Amino acid sequence: MVYPDTFKGFQIEDPKHWTEFKLNELKPKPFGDYDVDIKIQACGVCASDLHTVSGGWGEQHFPLCVGHEIVGTALRVGPKVTLIKPGERVGVGAQSYSCLKCKQCKNDNETYCVHQLDTYGAVWPDTGIVSQGGYSTHVRTHEHWVFPIPAGLATNKAAPMLCAGLTAYSPLVRNGAGPGKKVGIVGMGGIGHFGLLFSKALGAETWVISRTHSKEADAKKMGADGFLATADKDWNVPHKMTFDLIINTASSTENFDLAAYLSLLDVHGRWISVGLPEGSGQEVKAQDFLSNGCLIGASHLGSRKEVLAMLKLAEEKGIESWVEEIPISAEGLKTALTRLHNNNVRYRFTLTDYDKCFGTE
Amino acid sequence: MVYPDTFKGFQIEDPKHWTEFKLNELKPKPFGDYDVDIKIQACGVCASDLHTVSGGWGEQHFPLCVGHEIVGTALRVGPKVTLIKPGERVGVGAQSYSCLKCKQCKNDNETYCVHQLDTYGAVWPDTGIVSQGGYSTHVRTHEHWVFPIPAGLATNKAAPMLCAGLTAYSPLVRNGAGPGKKVGIVGMGGIGHFGLLFSKALGAETWVISRTHSKEADAKKMGADGFLATADKDWNVPHKMTFDLIINTASSTENFDLAAYLSLLDVHGRWISVGLPEGSGQEVKAQDFLSNGCLIGASHLGSRKEVLAMLKLAEEKGIESWVEEIPISAEGLKTALTRLHNNNVRYRFTLTDYDKCFGTE
Repeated sequence: MVYPDTFKGFQIEDPKHWTEFKLNELKPKPFGDYDVDIKIQACGVCASDLHTVSGGWGEQHFPLCVGHEIVGTALRVGPKVTLIKPGERVGVGAQSYSCLKCKQCKNDNETYCVHQLDTYGAVWPDTGIVSQGGYSTHVRTHEHWVFPIPAGLATNKAAPMLCAGLTAYSPLVRNGAGPGKKVGIVGMGGIGHFGLLFSKALGAETWVISRTHSKEADAKKMGADGFLATADKDWNVPHKMTFDLIINTASSTENFDLAAYLSLLDVHGRWISVGLPEGSGQEVKAQDFLSNGCLIGASHLGSRKEVLAMLKLAEEKGIESWVEEIPISAEGLKTALTRLHNNNVRYRFTLTDYDKCFGTE
Repeated sequence: MVYPDTFKGFQIEDPKHWTEFKLNELKPKPFGDYDVDIKIQACGVCASDLHTVSGGWGEQHFPLCVGHEIVGTALRVGPKVTLIKPGERVGVGAQSYSCLKCKQCKNDNETYCVHQLDTYGAVWPDTGIVSQGGYSTHVRTHEHWVFPIPAGLATNKAAPMLCAGLTAYSPLVRNGAGPGKKVGIVGMGGIGHFGLLFSKALGAETWVISRTHSKEADAKKMGADGFLATADKDWNVPHKMTFDLIINTASSTENFDLAAYLSLLDVHGRWISVGLPEGSGQEVKAQDFLSNGCLIGASHLGSRKEVLAMLKLAEEKGIESWVEEIPISAEGLKTALTRLHNNNVRYRFTLTDYDKCFGTE
């Protein structure tokens, strides 16, 4: 069996062996009226992929093919598709379904639809088929979650924008990042470096907040207006009540002195977390919020409209993701996941050379 | 020594004996150019008073006279006072000083000025004098924190608005409570009942969320559109993602299932705490915020502008605080504090009959 009946992809079969990828046949869901089949050309490697295959986020439907920062070519489109044309270069991110009928969906909050399904690891309610991600030959996705990639963006640089980029971009625009605002980006990894790039592109004064100074030079190259290292003594003191918005991309809550970070916020400033750390949470006290009336919250991906606006902004401003390319293969995936696990990536891996691995059909 | 050299008030001398009030002479700070001396007629009894005298909020400057929901008559005003005239009926709340020069002060966020001082228990930096509250004959207060009481409001009903009312009103208006919005008020005590009254007056659909149904009839009388009792099985399930704003007035975090409350919020809805519970905080997880991208925060009192707007709204809409009156005396204070400690008050005590206790001078 071959496409369009089956796809092929690298799956993890057991979280105990989360670096051992097997090339298996994948059974896609039936081709629907609004579906787009995409021949994949590149895929970013997201921390979600690691949390998922290693079991850090709990039980999953193994065997599983992860990857949700997908760029490829639209091969064919369903009879009711109007948003995508065959042959177009398109992207798919971390979400692949919502009802499109509820209040959330109608308000560009489809991310928060209670029927939302993830690009991989979700069970399609009608067929029981488990969705499979982009470490594979193809994806089949409803047009609403398929995004034309502007001509000015390179495939390998656009791919990580579809999850990491959007995850940073949406809370920036939803919380007013722009001229006259001071934004902090906590954690300079895949999402964090996009937070810096997009916050600057939106016109906000942007500071990076990291544990050490090791990434300061890179941050400055990306346009950071300032850099705080939390290992420095009294690092927060001179900057109290000066930030309007802080996007927290840290993926761990260990030894995290939240109160020190919150003290940076101006009155009613906001701390928005976009990471989903493994393990337990952290203690908060009403006192931590009282000196500035700040707010903490979280943000989950973003809307189709925001994806399109983000890609347009990236093209217009010439935003260049900082990626390291790794040709896709079982060995390449092992390298990528292992290095990601060791925080050894600046700042995102994009898997490439899909045709070499899988052929051109 | 008598007024204006000294005031008289009921002080607690030792938090171990927090119901034993002693009538002592109080030394006021020197009369400043912007100060107003007020002969007190009534004072609300705030949970802060209890937390303070009983040691629940930690070390205090004893002996201490508490009380910060003060209504009285302006006796004399300093040479630079323009906002208050002698003879006016005026109120004083929980804050009595800020610099009035910083960014926060200039943006109607004087509550968050780093130089802010409380009406009682604060040390005046220039003299070392400890500020004393309204269980007393007089207060001396900078005009910015002295508020004319509209003629349509009864003294005993206006008093508790000056802390409890404002504490509820400010986060309502700052977070958009009004027509078309659905607001929840958690906890129906002194602050909570004002939350309900003001949220309704602002035009929002307003629900009360309480542990049991014991206060449901009262809530309905005050205009509540709905009532949820968290002791009921699956109390939150039918109401998920329907609230825009929840004001949390609960003064305890024990057995508090925050995630269940947060599930009530619509996308980017806000949970604003105004209580300051004793003891430790509570654990939050990024997961608790992800299904709706909600925010949690806190609010501290409100601005002068908000006090004046609140009092105007209360007069216009005929808002009646639900108060129980207790004539001020050592015995009356013991009764009030003990009953408050036992949550046995519907919904606020106002201390009255000051002239009977202290005389008319």
